[in-house]
Amino acid sequence: MNIKDYLKTQTGFINRYINEFILEGEPKELFDSIKYSLNAGGKRLRPILILESAKAVGNDNIQDFIDIAVASEFIHTYSLIHDDLPAMDNDDLRRGKPTNHIVFGEAIAILAGDGLQSYAFELISKNKKIKPEKLLKIINILAHGTGIYGMVAGQAADILHEKYGTFNDIQFIHVHKTAKFIEACCHIGAVLGNASSEEELALKTYGLNIGLAFQIQDDILDEIGDTEKLGKKVKKDVNNNKLTFPSVYGLEESKKLARKHVEKAVESIKDLKNKEILTQLAKFIIEREV
Amino acid sequence: MNIKDYLKTQTGFINRYINEFILEGEPKELFDSIKYSLNAGGKRLRPILILESAKAVGNDNIQDFIDIAVASEFIHTYSLIHDDLPAMDNDDLRRGKPTNHIVFGEAIAILAGDGLQSYAFELISKNKKIKPEKLLKIINILAHGTGIYGMVAGQAADILHEKYGTFNDIQFIHVHKTAKFIEACCHIGAVLGNASSEEELALKTYGLNIGLAFQIQDDILDEIGDTEKLGKKVKKDVNNNKLTFPSVYGLEESKKLARKHVEKAVESIKDLKNKEILTQLAKFIIEREV
Repeated sequence: MNIKDYLKTQTGFINRYINEFILEGEPKELFDSIKYSLNAGGKRLRPILILESAKAVGNDNIQDFIDIAVASEFIHTYSLIHDDLPAMDNDDLRRGKPTNHIVFGEAIAILAGDGLQSYAFELISKNKKIKPEKLLKIINILAHGTGIYGMVAGQAADILHEKYGTFNDIQFIHVHKTAKFIEACCHIGAVLGNASSEEELALKTYGLNIGLAFQIQDDILDEIGDTEKLGKKVKKDVNNNKLTFPSVYGLEESKKLARKHVEKAVESIKDLKNKEILTQLAKFIIEREV
Repeated sequence: MNIKDYLKTQTGFINRYINEFILEGEPKELFDSIKYSLNAGGKRLRPILILESAKAVGNDNIQDFIDIAVASEFIHTYSLIHDDLPAMDNDDLRRGKPTNHIVFGEAIAILAGDGLQSYAFELISKNKKIKPEKLLKIINILAHGTGIYGMVAGQAADILHEKYGTFNDIQFIHVHKTAKFIEACCHIGAVLGNASSEEELALKTYGLNIGLAFQIQDDILDEIGDTEKLGKKVKKDVNNNKLTFPSVYGLEESKKLARKHVEKAVESIKDLKNKEILTQLAKFIIEREV
């Protein structure tokens, strides 16, 4: 099996479900704005990790929790819309398309992000297949990993360090901004897959490490990547004086660090029932060009 | 019992709990920003309604669900921070104090709002006293009432009508922007109080109607209120060409409409066990000056 092709199929699979879980509503501009960003492409890494983590510990009934996987992409999409705002990273282009606020204006972009966050939790709360105790635990993991002790803290630190220029806690930024959400997705998959406490810990360690590798690779691609392939401006972080792994550790050291995280991720899941796809996925993260 | 004094006591009660449910964290500026807005005053109407609705149907064990009441204020605070942003209502003053983005900058204000939303759901998911099925239902009611089919939709419609100037669906705006969240709080109280389906419906009807009365009174106070008492600029909505009840129906007609909603609210709960406080609270909503 070629992991690149497999992930492509899985991305397509998630894409088919994304729109099933969002209904029409008023005002039209709000819903158009939400759908615009949900359908603007993307690898769908987080929902894929939820499904694959559950499969890795033996739960293949993905029809029971595809809505939960989709909810993680709603959270991710909200964070991208808000990140791109003029007051935040001020990006005009994302995945080769104008960003949400460029098309719909800042106010609607803020509200689309807010609404995508609430709808993610609404979606999980509506699931009728998974036991309530588990759904609550999943809501807790997702809110924690993406909230004030996770992603939101990382974004805030990223913004503040951009301003103050201190260099000593790039690790804090990247653990919180990226890795904790990805860790949360693998953790959610573990819960859905009825993982033992050892398996749960293994998947969390896996998620945190591929999350860090993913962020380092993102920074590397920002330095050496191709605007056309990436669908966004490169050298943007560098030019904005953002703290990135290559800017602090240099390019070669960054590549080495990313490889180390991938090795740690692969090692952590070595005893899982079905580890093949997650293992290949971890390795692919630092080989990708987009 | 004087309802004004009673509500003051209840506001103080909620205030004491607000800070217990938010821990310290990094980066400091993010947590300072969150605490700044949480402690900037306010009537704490939504948490009070959750507690009083539960009491109205016979559940006085408020220690079991004070965290859920507080969570509603986190959501309300997030919505105020985002509403005040330059791209939204562009307000410099709220409750007599500079708004969040004036003090902490737009980026941190956006993130504080995002984080308050996730933390509200995290808080509910952590409750160990209420049954998981109920907590899930509460998360569903809260996310629905404040999300893309509730408050967020109302805000979007408000922004869009400001821009386009059509006058035909002020009702949509105010039902969604204000009343659905307040309805959700009374509904949550009903669930916590083990309400029968009749009682649940009664409390929802009550919430929707006092929500509408509350919004109309807000608009009236914006026209005739006192800047010093209100702690915010008056005639702001009028000057911004916002759709308000008085601007569409006139002042006298608005007062009459508010009274009608209060009567409907009071009528809807006439068979509840302990209806006294909610009845007086409904009447107080259109008597208040702040």
